[in-house]
Amino acid sequence: MIKKSLQHKIDFKTKPIGSLGFLEELAIQIGIIQNTTTPTLINPTIVVFAADHGIAKEGVSAYPQEVTFQMVMNFLNGGAAINVFSVQNGIQLKIVDAGVNYNFDGDTRLIHSKIAYGTQNFLRHEAMSCIEFQSCFDKTEPIIQSIAKEGCNVIGFGEMGIGNTSSASMIMSYLCNLPIEQCTGKGTGLSKEQLNKKISILKKAQEFHGNKDTPQEVLQTFGGFEIVQMCAAMMEAYKNNLLILVDGFIASVAFLAAYKINPQIISHAIFCHLSDENGHKNLLNYLNARTVLNLNMRLGEGTGCAVAYPIIKSAISFLNNMASFEDAGVANKN
Amino acid sequence: MIKKSLQHKIDFKTKPIGSLGFLEELAIQIGIIQNTTTPTLINPTIVVFAADHGIAKEGVSAYPQEVTFQMVMNFLNGGAAINVFSVQNGIQLKIVDAGVNYNFDGDTRLIHSKIAYGTQNFLRHEAMSCIEFQSCFDKTEPIIQSIAKEGCNVIGFGEMGIGNTSSASMIMSYLCNLPIEQCTGKGTGLSKEQLNKKISILKKAQEFHGNKDTPQEVLQTFGGFEIVQMCAAMMEAYKNNLLILVDGFIASVAFLAAYKINPQIISHAIFCHLSDENGHKNLLNYLNARTVLNLNMRLGEGTGCAVAYPIIKSAISFLNNMASFEDAGVANKN
Repeated sequence: MIKKSLQHKIDFKTKPIGSLGFLEELAIQIGIIQNTTTPTLINPTIVVFAADHGIAKEGVSAYPQEVTFQMVMNFLNGGAAINVFSVQNGIQLKIVDAGVNYNFDGDTRLIHSKIAYGTQNFLRHEAMSCIEFQSCFDKTEPIIQSIAKEGCNVIGFGEMGIGNTSSASMIMSYLCNLPIEQCTGKGTGLSKEQLNKKISILKKAQEFHGNKDTPQEVLQTFGGFEIVQMCAAMMEAYKNNLLILVDGFIASVAFLAAYKINPQIISHAIFCHLSDENGHKNLLNYLNARTVLNLNMRLGEGTGCAVAYPIIKSAISFLNNMASFEDAGVANKN
Repeated sequence: MIKKSLQHKIDFKTKPIGSLGFLEELAIQIGIIQNTTTPTLINPTIVVFAADHGIAKEGVSAYPQEVTFQMVMNFLNGGAAINVFSVQNGIQLKIVDAGVNYNFDGDTRLIHSKIAYGTQNFLRHEAMSCIEFQSCFDKTEPIIQSIAKEGCNVIGFGEMGIGNTSSASMIMSYLCNLPIEQCTGKGTGLSKEQLNKKISILKKAQEFHGNKDTPQEVLQTFGGFEIVQMCAAMMEAYKNNLLILVDGFIASVAFLAAYKINPQIISHAIFCHLSDENGHKNLLNYLNARTVLNLNMRLGEGTGCAVAYPIIKSAISFLNNMASFEDAGVANKN
């Protein structure tokens, strides 16, 4: 019913039928979520989850592990890309310590949700214990509930964690049942040779761990804390009927896990950009998802959500503010 | 020199090299135009040129001719898509009567640059006389100069004119030397049958007019006044060193004509979106141009410029406001 009303409202705007393309689809999606022909975007918020990864010790990243903590400091001081884009577009930014290898005790500028000082190296261990895995959900749900209570109805998620494309590639390979090569890319900037080394390490980890039966097991085995907390956050956002903005490769993998647990979540997701990270395109195809942007970005932090946000706002703007043919006294199609 | 300085500044931002993709290319382009590593976007302005077309009598559009004037009224009353997107993104909007079949005398809300009450039907005549063609340039140049004098350094162009995809297709076919089928689409929403009729009318017009030697002759022959004024406006914007935002199919054809007259103009152009109108992709390939957005929009009015504008702003934001590795105390690549 609401879908029909939205389509009718859009088709009588002073423009040729269908001429706003994907903006029209976004307007309909958001209208359906909010069950209204006058949807709104209120208190847009991006939550960035940061954590460290045991696998980073294997040299799978172009950057040293301490960059995770240093970038969190950069977020707190307002100097990172996600800060700049959030300020530009009026988005509230929240930083979560999901498990960084640094003691942030007493720092009130970030949300404390630390599980441990980084995951175990999944080449030889499970990334986290069963209790740690459950703890990711227990700690994250109240964070999202409190953001929803503040009136936010659109939420994006970002991440920071040196080594986390390796976790994401493993999770994708298991959950999509695709060879690891189709799920693995250069991350923050590996050479071809380093990429091959990364792939061979990930293959060894697959041999070590063998088959996994559930998305939960896959997440627990390969981590990281920020990916599991993002997955939990997305599921909680869905429960609170928030519009969910999905960022690039790693955030999409967290979404994939949430989707495997509850496929209905896809109704609330907007895929903000196609990342340059190899694997993202295959993942989006698997999810049958179209992205708002395709700018060859591959930075993470939720930057794709922040940059795409004004486009999503445009979808709502035209739906709410354009005149109809009747209002404007414009003749409709012959 | 400035290019090297811009690249250096970008590469020392706290992000992996190249990870902001096309935003980095935009930042460099704008920095080069303004010859600074701290470029700005000031008083962004979109100018919409409206005019009527004699060819509309042949039934080449899905809408009746009076929609041109009615939509101009809609622009003046703030109800059209371009109004909504301009307001959303803080863009100043100016409407120009380049040759609408309606008397706007005394209306101070629009810029009067009327050449005539619509062009001649190019199926049997030249769309405009040589004097009218020159008048398009003479009337447009001071409009752009005055906008530049107000301090604007980024300008987008849009159009409204029932029948104007037919003019645009003819111009593209001549200037790109491509068969008319590769330059013609459904415009505001023709059926397959109506599209075939449109193509056969355009073929007849090609037979009638034969070869043309210069871009100026092509413009004069096929019009319309809004396309020629847009071409003139783009050339004048280039002379005033403004960043030029190119909208969809028709605006890109106006740009093509300007480019054929002065190829250097391409350094100042950002192609805002890939239109769903058949022909636009071929035209962008011809110009070797990449677009900011690809949202299957096909509305004209400059809407692609207005919707893409925040993305262009993001390119400037990160360049000016992100911390460097040194500023932030973040370790650079291993």
